[in-house]
Amino acid sequence: MTVVLVLGSTRTAAIEGISAAGADRKAMLETPAVDAELVWDGQPITSESIPVSPSGCPTPALVTRAVHEVVGFDLLVIDAGLSATTRAPCVQLSQRVGGDIREIEPVPNAPTVFEAARDLAVERAFEEVTIGESIPGGTTTALGVLRALGEPYGVSSSLADNPTELKDDVVTEGLRTSELEVGDAAGDPFSALRSMGDPVLAAVTGFVTGAVSTGSTITLAGGSQMVAAAALLRHAGVDNALTLATTRYVADDVGSDLDRAAASLDFELVITDPEFERTNHPALEAYCRGEAKEGVAMGGALGLVGDNAMDEVHRRCLDRYDELVVTDAP
Amino acid sequence: MTVVLVLGSTRTAAIEGISAAGADRKAMLETPAVDAELVWDGQPITSESIPVSPSGCPTPALVTRAVHEVVGFDLLVIDAGLSATTRAPCVQLSQRVGGDIREIEPVPNAPTVFEAARDLAVERAFEEVTIGESIPGGTTTALGVLRALGEPYGVSSSLADNPTELKDDVVTEGLRTSELEVGDAAGDPFSALRSMGDPVLAAVTGFVTGAVSTGSTITLAGGSQMVAAAALLRHAGVDNALTLATTRYVADDVGSDLDRAAASLDFELVITDPEFERTNHPALEAYCRGEAKEGVAMGGALGLVGDNAMDEVHRRCLDRYDELVVTDAP
Repeated sequence: MTVVLVLGSTRTAAIEGISAAGADRKAMLETPAVDAELVWDGQPITSESIPVSPSGCPTPALVTRAVHEVVGFDLLVIDAGLSATTRAPCVQLSQRVGGDIREIEPVPNAPTVFEAARDLAVERAFEEVTIGESIPGGTTTALGVLRALGEPYGVSSSLADNPTELKDDVVTEGLRTSELEVGDAAGDPFSALRSMGDPVLAAVTGFVTGAVSTGSTITLAGGSQMVAAAALLRHAGVDNALTLATTRYVADDVGSDLDRAAASLDFELVITDPEFERTNHPALEAYCRGEAKEGVAMGGALGLVGDNAMDEVHRRCLDRYDELVVTDAP
Repeated sequence: MTVVLVLGSTRTAAIEGISAAGADRKAMLETPAVDAELVWDGQPITSESIPVSPSGCPTPALVTRAVHEVVGFDLLVIDAGLSATTRAPCVQLSQRVGGDIREIEPVPNAPTVFEAARDLAVERAFEEVTIGESIPGGTTTALGVLRALGEPYGVSSSLADNPTELKDDVVTEGLRTSELEVGDAAGDPFSALRSMGDPVLAAVTGFVTGAVSTGSTITLAGGSQMVAAAALLRHAGVDNALTLATTRYVADDVGSDLDRAAASLDFELVITDPEFERTNHPALEAYCRGEAKEGVAMGGALGLVGDNAMDEVHRRCLDRYDELVVTDAP
């Protein structure tokens, strides 16, 4: 099994109140880069600390890393356009960060990124792929893409209190700037990606397009962003079997939309339960209160864990958290 | 065992007649990028063909890949400053290609690259590392560094007929431009790297400095370039045990210099014999005539192969060659 982690940045994340993927806006710029280091090496390399939300909830990369240690999987990191440097080994497909979707054409290079990712997947010819992402602001661009394609589903959030009105406003403004009505990009995924997307969605869609063409089995590991990827794939005419694996926390947030998307976009839905309430640890229990919810392939990674190994995953998450998160306790 | 492959470019390679690491000068620009793809994936990704010398001798990456398949090792690719894009996953330490050593300060960022490589090795804390390189023109910059440090050893060549006079002239001109006499950079590896080196030597030296500080066992996998790296390390005050593993073809070319360097710079010398004469294949027999000789960690990789597995390495080299090198034969 190869877990593919696609990293990128979008200036959409800089909109006040849109994302919790970082303690503050400066830290958020580094989140995908450090997430990849954490999964690869078990520790941040370019940063002193691991990414946390403003309230201190740790990045899902912590969980994906724990699964990596317990289950063992091949890791392939793809840089689709990062604003920060990462020291995790990665394939660099682009150096262009996505723009704010309220601008005209925030991702002009979406076709190039798509094609580079597709070609990589074709050349490498993976057997089984679980593909996840790390891009702050990614649920808002996902919403933008869904609306451009005319898909009606809502999106989740890394914030416990999903700022749906703000996201709707941003997407509405983005569509207006791009002179698009809802659904105008139906059947035209490049138009949706260029006008309302982000580099990660371009790379994920391209990668999966290439991978299925070589017979790879694909799991889209994530929530709303992977629903957007599935929609882009279907609108691109890709009709291969797809599975989407995400956490219970996403399902609790947007559950019925997830079921409707699975039916309409024809993907198998796998909901994994991290069971963090069993850890009695405030950092992980934050997930049970709806923080972070998903990301960095966490939902898909947990799907690789057998029933007997979940305790071990918990233990490693907690050990790593205590080791890496400096507390003020005496 | 982790094999670390450090990639980079130097405009020194563009000097007519200096390197055989590419069919022509345009191809040579791509050689390190494609070498890494070959070791990682068993095939070129960004190129139609594998790197060959002007006479058709295939890149040593073919051999390192075969060893990878037979022995299995962890691979870490480092981009110290490449002129071409690679699709092999790598840690990008710099995007700055080294200048022609006849210019003033061809590698002004040598300290930055050194430090980034050192920090990476410290963070990752490897147990055992075999470190090799791919940088066309690298034996000439190695000669430049050795002279700047005041070390008297000659260097090998990827050409069967080593253009030693040309290299000496280039180095003499480089020293003059940098206003250095032979030995002026003794004890000052950064001065040698900045004035006469290349980004790969900066990264290798930094990486090894970091790795030995965490107790890693190090094998410098290569010929003249790794002698230069050993010299830089000793001049930097690194006194840990070092092993240098290279092929018989390098030893045949500069044998006594290699022995003297091992004694004076205090490294253990391991000479591996690829036994390519046993393959009865013109592509690999070119090595026995002194072409290519070494590179892409080939000498060190062969040191990982047990006696019983050499036939398997040969078989895989030939299979891969026949599969990847298009011939005009009917």
